[in-house]
Amino acid sequence: MITAFVLILATAGKERDALEKLKNMPEVKEAYMVYGEYDLLIRVETDSLKGLDDVIMGKIRKMPEIQLTSTLIAV
Amino acid sequence: MITAFVLILATAGKERDALEKLKNMPEVKEAYMVYGEYDLLIRVETDSLKGLDDVIMGKIRKMPEIQLTSTLIAV
Amino acid sequence: MITAFVLILATAGKERDALEKLKNMPEVKEAYMVYGEYDLLIRVETDSLKGLDDVIMGKIRKMPEIQLTSTLIAV
Amino acid sequence: MITAFVLILATAGKERDALEKLKNMPEVKEAYMVYGEYDLLIRVETDSLKGLDDVIMGKIRKMPEIQLTSTLIAV
Amino acid sequence: MITAFVLILATAGKERDALEKLKNMPEVKEAYMVYGEYDLLIRVETDSLKGLDDVIMGKIRKMPEIQLTSTLIAV
Amino acid sequence: MITAFVLILATAGKERDALEKLKNMPEVKEAYMVYGEYDLLIRVETDSLKGLDDVIMGKIRKMPEIQLTSTLIAV
Amino acid sequence: MITAFVLILATAGKERDALEKLKNMPEVKEAYMVYGEYDLLIRVETDSLKGLDDVIMGKIRKMPEIQLTSTLIAV
Amino acid sequence: MITAFVLILATAGKERDALEKLKNMPEVKEAYMVYGEYDLLIRVETDSLKGLDDVIMGKIRKMPEIQLTSTLIAV
Repeated sequence: MITAFVLILATAGKERDALEKLKNMPEVKEAYMVYGEYDLLIRVETDSLKGLDDVIMGKIRKMPEIQLTSTLIAV
Repeated sequence: MITAFVLILATAGKERDALEKLKNMPEVKEAYMVYGEYDLLIRVETDSLKGLDDVIMGKIRKMPEIQLTSTLIAV
Repeated sequence: MITAFVLILATAGKERDALEKLKNMPEVKEAYMVYGEYDLLIRVETDSLKGLDDVIMGKIRKMPEIQLTSTLIAV
Repeated sequence: MITAFVLILATAGKERDALEKLKNMPEVKEAYMVYGEYDLLIRVETDSLKGLDDVIMGKIRKMPEIQLTSTLIAV
Repeated sequence: MITAFVLILATAGKERDALEKLKNMPEVKEAYMVYGEYDLLIRVETDSLKGLDDVIMGKIRKMPEIQLTSTLIAV
Repeated sequence: MITAFVLILATAGKERDALEKLKNMPEVKEAYMVYGEYDLLIRVETDSLKGLDDVIMGKIRKMPEIQLTSTLIAV
Repeated sequence: MITAFVLILATAGKERDALEKLKNMPEVKEAYMVYGEYDLLIRVETDSLKGLDDVIMGKIRKMPEIQLTSTLIAV
Repeated sequence: MITAFVLILATAGKERDALEKLKNMPEVKEAYMVYGEYDLLIRVETDSLKGLDDVIMGKIRKMPEIQLTSTLIAV
């Protein structure tokens, strides 16, 4: 299993909408709105690197509320 | 009481408009246009983390003149 | 309750030692070694901002294995 | 008069010592320990850019508790 | 010969399209979609700094799928 | 006299247009397109901090070809 | 197979030594000294995420010539 | 001819010493101490990329007063 944390810069003003959408995705196990150098932090779990690709590149990064992501893959 | 500093990247060319709007918000106690790695720096005071959320996520980040914020919460 | 995520740059080569120490702290609820722009990511829970100060400033940042931290406080 | 904000990365574990020293400098009008992408934020006021140099380059950056500074000069 | 690596932030959701276009450029010798602080990493080879300019400034940065590039020129 | 260097992220694909406009401004004494973490670097000279404001905030940051600036003011 | 690129900040003045050591590691398939926001860029190939851990955390980050790494894992 | 700008983070408190040494190097055509996200900015001119290597990697980065450099090579 692959665990990844995704640090997200949301489109300013759209962070709540992004949070709601992310919370409804089955691969997103935790989702927080945060203060600091990013706006949202989520934990994603998938079966494989390929599955991670489907979630992050295929779904999350296509959301119009999201501007930038930085992914941290757990060792 | 919560004190937070918000470092802001304004939409280029809109920093003066953003500054004027921010100065009119009661929770914004100081507001400066600055040279350096950010464009604006403000000090916000609220009664609680919830109140900070209302100001930063609910108002400031919804301003079209603002692109990115990084919040520093005082210890 | 306050939930905070701490993104950590460890002293290169000392990230495993840092991870072990962090996992033994009661306020650290999750701790991961990660690939990406940071080396470690932890979730801290405390009763108050004051308690967060005791953990992050008073303990974590005093560890010699840790170089830099960036704290994201959950809204 | 010149107003500048200095964002500071302190040596991990030394942020309280740095804060105390900074608070004792007459040109430092405000000093906060913060959570986020920096550790300390101070407001400095001097009569001239030359005076700012004396404070930031001549004193603050020579403190062993300080690793990195990013100065924002108010417009 | 000049070898350069270009680290790319793609428009969120457009990284696959960008990757396809980049792979079709003769000067782009390797192209990867990546997890981390950037979205794409490519290796470019040209005969001269002038040629690098034609590729990076003249073609790659004009692609609508690309938001930001940081170029690392091999020594 | 105030000397400042402005590091600029241009709108991708518009860096040449930005360079031409900047070169025509009397306060801009040097202007370069560069490879690295920024796209353009210019040197600005003005009589005062107020004059710097007029150039950077009043003119340069209003150019549609410019996304982000980071100003370094010479000591 | 896992392909990862590691962006490296070397201890200033030690980048050549680091480069030589890295070139002698079998998992390091390419290694370059570069100009830009990092000092070295390498491509690592391993059979698994576990193998990547052995190389990056177990060997590369333990080298005294290396200060900071940012890993980009290819999709 | 190659023109490069080097953005430098100096060891805190050593920026004046670094500046003096840099000003004495024949390839360094301009050298400034600056306020902002870096501490020093210099312009280097050499005959070739190889010559740039000799100056930046062979001399500047070996100075103990320098912690980090980011090189911008003019197009």
